[in-house]
Amino acid sequence: MAAGVPDAGQPLDRDRFREAMSLLGAAVNVITTDGPAGRHGITASAVCSVTDSPPTVLVCINRGSGRYRLFRDNGVLCVNVLAAHHQALSNRFANATEAATRFEHDRWTVLTTGAPVLADAGASLDCRVGQVTDVGTHSVFFCEVVGVATSKQAGGLVWFDRGYHPLGPGAG
Amino acid sequence: MAAGVPDAGQPLDRDRFREAMSLLGAAVNVITTDGPAGRHGITASAVCSVTDSPPTVLVCINRGSGRYRLFRDNGVLCVNVLAAHHQALSNRFANATEAATRFEHDRWTVLTTGAPVLADAGASLDCRVGQVTDVGTHSVFFCEVVGVATSKQAGGLVWFDRGYHPLGPGAG
Repeated sequence: MAAGVPDAGQPLDRDRFREAMSLLGAAVNVITTDGPAGRHGITASAVCSVTDSPPTVLVCINRGSGRYRLFRDNGVLCVNVLAAHHQALSNRFANATEAATRFEHDRWTVLTTGAPVLADAGASLDCRVGQVTDVGTHSVFFCEVVGVATSKQAGGLVWFDRGYHPLGPGAG
Repeated sequence: MAAGVPDAGQPLDRDRFREAMSLLGAAVNVITTDGPAGRHGITASAVCSVTDSPPTVLVCINRGSGRYRLFRDNGVLCVNVLAAHHQALSNRFANATEAATRFEHDRWTVLTTGAPVLADAGASLDCRVGQVTDVGTHSVFFCEVVGVATSKQAGGLVWFDRGYHPLGPGAG
């Protein structure tokens, strides 16, 4: 494809959709939960602010692994927005083989709900899960934000074009 | 607040929520529509990939202005993911006073639905609107993606910490 020439008009298939999605930059987050169903955490970029009245975010989680039920059954989760220096942490929570040990490498606290809060996250959004809407392979969790912690100086970490992009003061 | 010390534990209010949301980086998009209800376009960062089976994205739109009805009534929209050089375009579609002339400065085409497609967007997702879910002040539009155009060489544009951050090959 020549530079600057959009390759419009081709029929849509899954690979074309994924290629387009790879060009929609998104913050990298670790979504955690804890409660009667157990502790869990996953790396996810499909998080979106919805409204500040009442403070609400949504999180899209793949139902394929079955682990998504922990989030639904605990009814609480924390969106830990990763900071510029968190690439290794992101990889750890995206890697199924490190499920048993992924919480051992960093400092975790709690706010209101008991879901694990990453101590040096750029921002942490402590949430109670409300409505859950199934769409194809994924579930969309609408979450009421009941507590936040922020550390603006940490910068941000964005996933774009299939790679990490550190942003802001922590990126240097 | 000292560098690196999260200010956890404070009661949540709207300003605290907004501060946390400002640290959740997000791609900048211009969401367009056209059809019987009229042509319109707005700048929005609340766009999220949901699933590739079937190809679906969601878009959160404020109901406050009333213009959101154009998207609902037309039943089609295009998510134009802005490229690194699109800051002025982003400002134009965020500025209410330029509503009448905002489409005049750039080159627009169409794909399948007839919603305006920005010719040099990083990616354009041409969509049919499906389910619409109201949450507080906003509506969440679940959209089936029926056509895409991409221009990877354009780079990306992210909103983080209340400022623009160009990414990738078009950022230089």
